[in-house]
Order: sequence, then structure tokens, then C-alpha cells
Amino acid sequence: MNARMSLAPSSPSSPGTTLLVLDAEPLPRLGRLTGRVRVEHADTSTLAEKLPSADALLVWDFASDAVRRAWPGEGPRPRWVHTASAGVDHLMCPELAASDTVVTNARGVFDQPIAEYVAALVLAMAKDLPRTWDLQRDREWRHRESQRVAGTRACVVGSGPIGRAIVRTLKALDITTALVGRRPRTGIHGPAELDRLMARADWVVCAAPLTDETHGMFDARRFGMMQPSARFINVGRGQLVVERALAEALSKRWIAGAALDVFEHEPLGPDSPLWQVPGLIVSPHMSGDTIGWRDELSAQFLELYDRWAAGEPLRNVVDKKRGYVPGH
Amino acid sequence: MNARMSLAPSSPSSPGTTLLVLDAEPLPRLGRLTGRVRVEHADTSTLAEKLPSADALLVWDFASDAVRRAWPGEGPRPRWVHTASAGVDHLMCPELAASDTVVTNARGVFDQPIAEYVAALVLAMAKDLPRTWDLQRDREWRHRESQRVAGTRACVVGSGPIGRAIVRTLKALDITTALVGRRPRTGIHGPAELDRLMARADWVVCAAPLTDETHGMFDARRFGMMQPSARFINVGRGQLVVERALAEALSKRWIAGAALDVFEHEPLGPDSPLWQVPGLIVSPHMSGDTIGWRDELSAQFLELYDRWAAGEPLRNVVDKKRGYVPGH
Repeated sequence: MNARMSLAPSSPSSPGTTLLVLDAEPLPRLGRLTGRVRVEHADTSTLAEKLPSADALLVWDFASDAVRRAWPGEGPRPRWVHTASAGVDHLMCPELAASDTVVTNARGVFDQPIAEYVAALVLAMAKDLPRTWDLQRDREWRHRESQRVAGTRACVVGSGPIGRAIVRTLKALDITTALVGRRPRTGIHGPAELDRLMARADWVVCAAPLTDETHGMFDARRFGMMQPSARFINVGRGQLVVERALAEALSKRWIAGAALDVFEHEPLGPDSPLWQVPGLIVSPHMSGDTIGWRDELSAQFLELYDRWAAGEPLRNVVDKKRGYVPGH
Repeated sequence: MNARMSLAPSSPSSPGTTLLVLDAEPLPRLGRLTGRVRVEHADTSTLAEKLPSADALLVWDFASDAVRRAWPGEGPRPRWVHTASAGVDHLMCPELAASDTVVTNARGVFDQPIAEYVAALVLAMAKDLPRTWDLQRDREWRHRESQRVAGTRACVVGSGPIGRAIVRTLKALDITTALVGRRPRTGIHGPAELDRLMARADWVVCAAPLTDETHGMFDARRFGMMQPSARFINVGRGQLVVERALAEALSKRWIAGAALDVFEHEPLGPDSPLWQVPGLIVSPHMSGDTIGWRDELSAQFLELYDRWAAGEPLRNVVDKKRGYVPGH
């Protein structure tokens, strides 16, 4: 018997309910659900088989695109999918978007950590810290002049909570900051202004969700438009950037530097040419992952679970057509 | 004839006045003084000989301690000495302190740049950027958890304009910050509270002037008092820190990391063991030197020169007994 069939809509959770967890590593705090729900685990190979009998799905292994591949086209499927990530690109597919399944995300957990990470990159590039490390390794004392960040201009692309936290943090460093989102509203510029704002920015920061509209948006044309002194930072998704175009822009000195924390293919293999592009800082998708992040993600999921079990409206509900939680 | 003798006190500058410049490299903008004052140049070897006939001395080569060694004990000497640096430790000596010569410094020029540099180091250490560079060099994708800086505690030692700018910048990053100065006053803790504040700080930042009181203040006892997770940053003067004690504290993991921008002996030679102390970031005394800094220092001197030439009171006057410009 499929447990979901026996449940009234107002009481979606019971010991007969099944929570399926797609995980590659243990999830803290899940013991709190003992006796309240049947918890099953799946990996990439078993997900398709287990998905139809699950009432809810927790995508803990957010690096996997298994959900997109395993999602059942018709028939029984989870009524709720939560992903322990800000982006939902790895799980969205037309069938999920068209279904009545509610999708929620980890909105909020990564905002401040990513904003700090971007500030760290901006300051490290302004103060020439990568070169300082190289010189230290070579035991060479070489004084250089560095840059002031106060008074410089940033253009932040992506007006969700992460982009807005980045703006707050850069402004706190006296950087003049413009925010660009999908549609213009108070304090946020629309896409029509992106090229103009980017062309005069010292820092172009990408924190946009990956959607059909944003895929490959940072391409040769846009890198060619930036100032030769500009630096580009991507903490959104790898596919927002045409990596080959960025590597070429750096090699040809169209722009002065860049930092990528996300990549088209993760993990980046040892053979990737990106490791050695001049002026490019490569980090392993860690901008939002501060100590305790798994605990925070878990606590956030359990709070949502309590709401779902009580039949209360969920928070952080993703607009499945747009591919993110709509803001104000 | 000594030009100084013919000048009334209210008109200290004339074409007969001599401005001596201790410089190791050209000084921008000095051409503005053409026809107004006789400009002579000295280096370390000629300073002692030229000093008695100078009315004013500009210490442009602030890395040199030639002034301290060459200062005339008695007899004619400059009435005004300006140093293009925040610290005056390199030129002060008992004879200069006891004389009626006015000493001014470059107060203000370095505040914001050094504050940004400290923020860059704090964020780089919190986000483990040095390790990221090492891993990139090795083409190795290794995800780590990093630290949030918001909510951490800093203890900034040195309550002059540089220390206060550091406090403002760290506070803007939501770091809880305590400032320690020579005497307690509103918003500033006295030296008696240093050990207590330092012992609970995540970041201990030294931006104090080098004086008899502060010499070697960061020693084994103080490093032993800090938290094992704490990081130490020195942007003041090298002699404030007992370098051997810091190296030992890092090697023994008494503290988690450190960054030195200033050293007991500068430049640091290739044989110094400091280059390779684990967890120590070494940079070549560059924290305050942002693009245009020489121009700013020069503009600041020329403004002071105009005041001096007009017989107006000087700004940035150093309390020669204390060794810095007293604050409020």
C-alpha cells in the first residue's frame, strides 16, 4: 500500500509517511524524526526505483543531478521536494515543473557566508594577495602598490538574498554597488541595464540562479565590454559563464582578473586548463560552506518538515517556472 | 650665512630658506616649490653634513634611520622635520625630542588603505584562501569548510587614526571589535584591559606606534594567552613583536595563524626563517601603500609647507615624548 493514499491533505505526515533522502554522506540531526516518519535513503543508482513510493524527498546530495534524471513522468511521486542548496537547477525538469509537487530550497543559509567570500576575493585581488603568497614561497621581498576598494564600483548580478547580501557587504566597504535582477524594481536594475553597469564596474559579481535565461550569460561579448582593469567573480553556477571565453578574456588581458568558485563540470579535473589561466583564482565550490553549514541546512529542513507535517504552508517555495524563490 | 638667521619668526620661509630632502627616489610634485625655497637633497651618507644648514627637513626615505644617527646634538638644526610616514620611530632620538624642532607626520594618508588591508587578511584567513592558492597550484579540488567572520571578536591595539579605521572596517563586517590605546577613554580600553580582551579575541590586530612602552609587547606570554583558534596581524612596526616568540607560538599551535606586514629588520632577507613559518603570511610592508600614495604624501607635505611658510600653525604635530600625534 502506498502510504500517501491513506493520508488526508491536512495531515500529510504520519509514521506511515515516507521521507526519502538522497544523500552521499550522513545528515546531522535526522534522528529527530525517529518515530515520526519512515526515513529511507537513496543514492544515484536507487533513486528512480524509490522515488514513486516517497511522500517527501530531501535532496541532501545537492551536487547530484539524479533527481532530474529519475523524476517520474506520470504516476506516484513525492508531494514535496526540499533541496539543501540555494540553486534548484540540478533537480528541475519539465515534468517536475509541470507537477503539483512543491519544491523548497535552502534560502537564507548561504547569504552571509557567500557575501563574506566575495568580499574576501575582492579584497584579496585589490591587495594583490595571490602574488604575495607566490613571493613568500620564493622568499622574495618585493614591495608593490595595491588598490583601495573604497570608491570603486561593483555590479552584482542576481537579486536574490545572496546577491542582496553581497551588495550590503560591499557597500559596507564603501564600494559603490549596483544590483541587477530579472526585473527592475526599487533598488534593483533590470537586465536592460546590465551591459551599461557592467561596462563601468571594477567588480562584476555573478550570483544569479541558473535558468534558461541566464545560461551562458557571461560570454565573450560581455567580457569584451568590461574595463581592462575589471575583475569578474562567479559564485552562482558554472554554466552562467562561458569558461572558454573567460579564459580567453584573461589571456588577452581584456579584463584584469577573475575568480571562479563554480564550474561547468564539478569537481574540476586535474587536466582542466582553468587551473592555470593567468589571473584566475580557482576555488572548489565552497563560498557558502562555513563551519556548521550542514547543521544549519539540517535544522532548516527540520523546521520545514514540522510545517509540512502540521499541514502548514511551507517557506522558501521555489517558483518552478522561474527556477528560484521569487522575492519582493 | 645661514639663511635661517635672517628670517623673522613670522615668516620662516623665503627663497633664502633651505629645505633638505632625505630621499632614495624622486618625489612627485616637488616642482611646485621652485623659486620659493632652496631644495637640497641628501642621502644617508651626506645627511649629517647637510643637516645643520637646513631650515626644514623632509624625510621622504622613511625606511632609513639616518636622521636618528645624524641629528646634531647642539647648534644649528632644522626647525621643522616632516616624515612621509605614520610612525616616527625611525627618526626620534633624545636630542630631537629635547629640541624645539617641530616634527610632523603623514597622519591620515594610510588609515583607510591599512584598514582595508587588515580586512583582506582577516577574510583571507577566515576563508582559507592561502590553502586555496596552494591547492590550485597543485591542480587539486579539495572542498573545505571555512569560517564566518560576522560574529567573531577582534581586539585592535593602537587607538590612533589607523587603529580607529581598522575598527570601523571590521565592525562593518559585523565583527565585534574592542580598541585598546595608551589610556582609557570613551570607546577605547586602557592597557590594563589588553590581556583580558586579547585572550578572548579571534583576531588580534596590532596597529600601535613603536615607543619604549610598546617595544616587544607581543611576546611569548601574550601569544600564550591567546585562543588556539586566534589569528594575529601586525601592521604597526616589526619591533612591537618578538618574532621568535611568534614563530614558536605558530609552530606549537598556540595560535592558529598570523600575518606580518612589518618586521624587525626590513627588507626581510631570503635567509629569514619567517618566510616558512607554518600559518604565517609574510608581506613586504605594503599595507598602506595604495596606488597614488606617493602623490598623496607629497600633496600632504606641500600643504603643510604652505602653512609653515605662511607662519601658520602646523597640523599632524607629533608629541615627541610619546612618539605619535596625540588624539582626542
